[in-house]
Amino acid sequence: MAPKPHYTPNHIPDPSYIRILDTTLRDGEQSPGAPMPAAEKLAIARQLAALGVDVIQPGFPSASSDDFNAVKAIAQEVGNAVDGDGHVPVIAGFCRCVEKDIAVAWDAVKYAKWPRLCTSIATSPIHMEHKLRKSKEQVIKIARDMVTFARSLGCVDVQFGAEDAARSDREFLYEILGVVIEAGATTVNIADTVGILMPFEMGKLIADIKANTPGIQNVIISTHCHNDLGLATANTIEGARAGARQLEVTMNGIGERAGNACLEEVVMALACKGYHVLGGLHTRINTTHILKTSKMVEECSGMHLQPHKALVGANAFVHASGIHQDGMLKHKSTYEIISPADIGLKRSTEVGIVLGRLSGRQALRKRLEELGYVLKEDQVDSVFSHFKSMAEKKKVMTCGTMGLSTTTIKLVTTNNSTHVACSIGTGAVDSAYKAINLIVKEPIKLLEYSLNSVTEGISVTSTARVVICRENYHTSTYAFNITYPTYSGIGTGMDVVVSSVEAYLVALNKLLGCKESFICAEKIQISE
Amino acid sequence: MAPKPHYTPNHIPDPSYIRILDTTLRDGEQSPGAPMPAAEKLAIARQLAALGVDVIQPGFPSASSDDFNAVKAIAQEVGNAVDGDGHVPVIAGFCRCVEKDIAVAWDAVKYAKWPRLCTSIATSPIHMEHKLRKSKEQVIKIARDMVTFARSLGCVDVQFGAEDAARSDREFLYEILGVVIEAGATTVNIADTVGILMPFEMGKLIADIKANTPGIQNVIISTHCHNDLGLATANTIEGARAGARQLEVTMNGIGERAGNACLEEVVMALACKGYHVLGGLHTRINTTHILKTSKMVEECSGMHLQPHKALVGANAFVHASGIHQDGMLKHKSTYEIISPADIGLKRSTEVGIVLGRLSGRQALRKRLEELGYVLKEDQVDSVFSHFKSMAEKKKVMTCGTMGLSTTTIKLVTTNNSTHVACSIGTGAVDSAYKAINLIVKEPIKLLEYSLNSVTEGISVTSTARVVICRENYHTSTYAFNITYPTYSGIGTGMDVVVSSVEAYLVALNKLLGCKESFICAEKIQISE
Repeated sequence: MAPKPHYTPNHIPDPSYIRILDTTLRDGEQSPGAPMPAAEKLAIARQLAALGVDVIQPGFPSASSDDFNAVKAIAQEVGNAVDGDGHVPVIAGFCRCVEKDIAVAWDAVKYAKWPRLCTSIATSPIHMEHKLRKSKEQVIKIARDMVTFARSLGCVDVQFGAEDAARSDREFLYEILGVVIEAGATTVNIADTVGILMPFEMGKLIADIKANTPGIQNVIISTHCHNDLGLATANTIEGARAGARQLEVTMNGIGERAGNACLEEVVMALACKGYHVLGGLHTRINTTHILKTSKMVEECSGMHLQPHKALVGANAFVHASGIHQDGMLKHKSTYEIISPADIGLKRSTEVGIVLGRLSGRQALRKRLEELGYVLKEDQVDSVFSHFKSMAEKKKVMTCGTMGLSTTTIKLVTTNNSTHVACSIGTGAVDSAYKAINLIVKEPIKLLEYSLNSVTEGISVTSTARVVICRENYHTSTYAFNITYPTYSGIGTGMDVVVSSVEAYLVALNKLLGCKESFICAEKIQISE
Repeated sequence: MAPKPHYTPNHIPDPSYIRILDTTLRDGEQSPGAPMPAAEKLAIARQLAALGVDVIQPGFPSASSDDFNAVKAIAQEVGNAVDGDGHVPVIAGFCRCVEKDIAVAWDAVKYAKWPRLCTSIATSPIHMEHKLRKSKEQVIKIARDMVTFARSLGCVDVQFGAEDAARSDREFLYEILGVVIEAGATTVNIADTVGILMPFEMGKLIADIKANTPGIQNVIISTHCHNDLGLATANTIEGARAGARQLEVTMNGIGERAGNACLEEVVMALACKGYHVLGGLHTRINTTHILKTSKMVEECSGMHLQPHKALVGANAFVHASGIHQDGMLKHKSTYEIISPADIGLKRSTEVGIVLGRLSGRQALRKRLEELGYVLKEDQVDSVFSHFKSMAEKKKVMTCGTMGLSTTTIKLVTTNNSTHVACSIGTGAVDSAYKAINLIVKEPIKLLEYSLNSVTEGISVTSTARVVICRENYHTSTYAFNITYPTYSGIGTGMDVVVSSVEAYLVALNKLLGCKESFICAEKIQISE
């Protein structure tokens, strides 16, 4: 793990030190459907500070008054909170190379101890001609004027972004970057906006800029990579190898289209390989906060992660095949290059707490802390009282008058015998599954349940998926990242409960193997 | 796009031609919960052939009799089907360096026109010491003997895999690869089994092997990269730049832990950059089949993709921010490097067909074809008759006696007014949402709905997520990959319908902005 150098924007002692600029709350929030309320953005910004991010880019203040208010609140609070290492994160407002944008962004970030303005304009022929409809000379003049304007507001930390730098003419890039450095830019951000570069091309681009741009030795070179070909993490690492000392990333890699370079992948690649093969490159990220931050961003943005997402996906540390399990049982590092604990994965404790109307104040406080919300005593009181009344409401909502759902299931087997069972449960799917279990009489453990209906709306069809295994495999093996044979099933239909029942039966029939197969003939559900 | 050279294992005319070995059905299937029945594996193998994959690795025959039968069926059918270019895919059985494994694999693949045996043993000190518990000399002897044994069975196409090659001693690697080449291996596969390499390291590894291994000029070098640090695609591309001419990949990148290099990312990187910057590297993949194959693998494996998955995620071609939308409207290539049609994305037609009990035979046949199932006339008749009876059953299951679900919803606003509405719908969630719409009186379009409850089972809590927008934005804009403001909400609870209602209200309250907020006070659901 990297040491934790004392860092301020004006005091950069170590040439191998890599700054992490997190743009989860700006570029990440541009994901379709991801916009987050100010309170959630503030909570995430607090967690990014705990993670040890150098620069937080919390929004695009002139995009909306909501975003302005969120950035301002983060600048005021997170931008002035000193952590245990004496570190205060830079708060960076995003703005186009437009005077009004810059002025509004400054009004939002100026409350921070280390405010930054990140002003950006496209530098590629295709963007200048078709989007900006400006000549090279016009774009250079705008860039110089806007960096000068940003500095004139009293901002000493100005980042200039070359949008679509990847497809820009090299000589033009050297020229415009030289001009903005002369005008007072302190960081220059090189964006592969459309995610088109191969890793070695990104390395060459950064090396060329470093070798040919007037004044570049006085500023920090930054990368901003998109993931359209799945190469954003690699391109970011290659940028750092070639001389970039700030890397722009988002948590979970969220963002426009296929998203941005992932914070967790870039940081863990540097943590694993920085000292050995990357010439000493290192960050100050506290990697044990990665998983918590990831889950918080997943929850707030609604951008679910696939099970095989590197590092933070549900399967990232799960070994399924017999050969791998054999290796893992003999020696962990046969198949594990990172300990789950390095990213904060503590299976046994993180899973256990389920809050309900019978939960106490301490359970609530602990869960809130895990989610990144540290509250004062009176705030806990207030949240606890709201929580209790919500939990009561939910009980009413969930359960009607009886507090339980009842389902009757009729199954027919392949040799035409009919079985009927009825069960109560905490919800419609739960009671249906319990009724099926009564018929099948196999000890089943439900490992995973999900349901999806993408882009077409609920009125069409949705697909449920379950993963099950036999209950009698000792559960502690799961905690050791070893799984025994699991079986999945998918069911599709217009009713989520019916889809769920079908998916369960598909998985169950696989688990039963050569024994009988069960088909659902009828389902009657009563929410009492 | 690449031209389509005529290719057989024994006739390799073009030194820039890259073979794609797809291991979705072997290494991909090793994902927790992903095991697929033989019929699904066969359907996927047919689709992989249509995609133009050079080598299909459909399983590990000695792992189970199910896998043996699946591989054999694929070898018999897909391994003998000639496509329009005269191409027949190689069918490759995976086996450890164990005589029984190899013999069983041969019994499964020998029916193919071009059968291959892929035999693998670990070559790193940590694996040899802790997993195999064998010396270097023992491992070399086993490797030589097993390749010789594979050839002795009559198999002329033998691939030797060096498991954990990334962490192996270089000199030992040159030695063992030289030995297996001498013994008759025709492809040597270099695996980064734990996903630890940086892209430039993978390039160096392949270049070193190419430069130092006796006889290497007579065989094909292959890469097999894992994604633990998010670098599998980049490492694969760097391997190809350094001389690998077979790339092992999986569709959607599924596989053990964080999965394997993605077929779609590797192939599209080569399609976009092969001729311009990668020295002419090209494949024979028909990229317009990528999306269809991706969806089929997602469905069969149950490994859902995150919305920002590169190329094949739901958001991969969706532009959300105002700046990007402005650019897209002016000129597509400002933000789009790949046309959605290149990977087979045809939004307007692919979405429309929803099968139900009123659907006709042609709609069923068209949908089956889209899913990769091409049936003969009598097979269509048989499937259609099953489909009709299933659709009838589903109707019974879904709807009880009336064919509809009814939900009554009571909402309370922040200024304490109470609203009650009742609606029927096609399912519990649908009727609840319709009841809410009656109260809120805003024209809402539901863009996305999903529900997840991972690793803890249904009896605890599940999280629903919805994405909505105002209905009055013309839907055709969505088809042009431009979205208008969208709002997401998440709801968590023990009952899927209640979670779904909560998620919908969160999104709805965001959409309503400064107007009233609605809270659900009561929900009564009757499946009549």
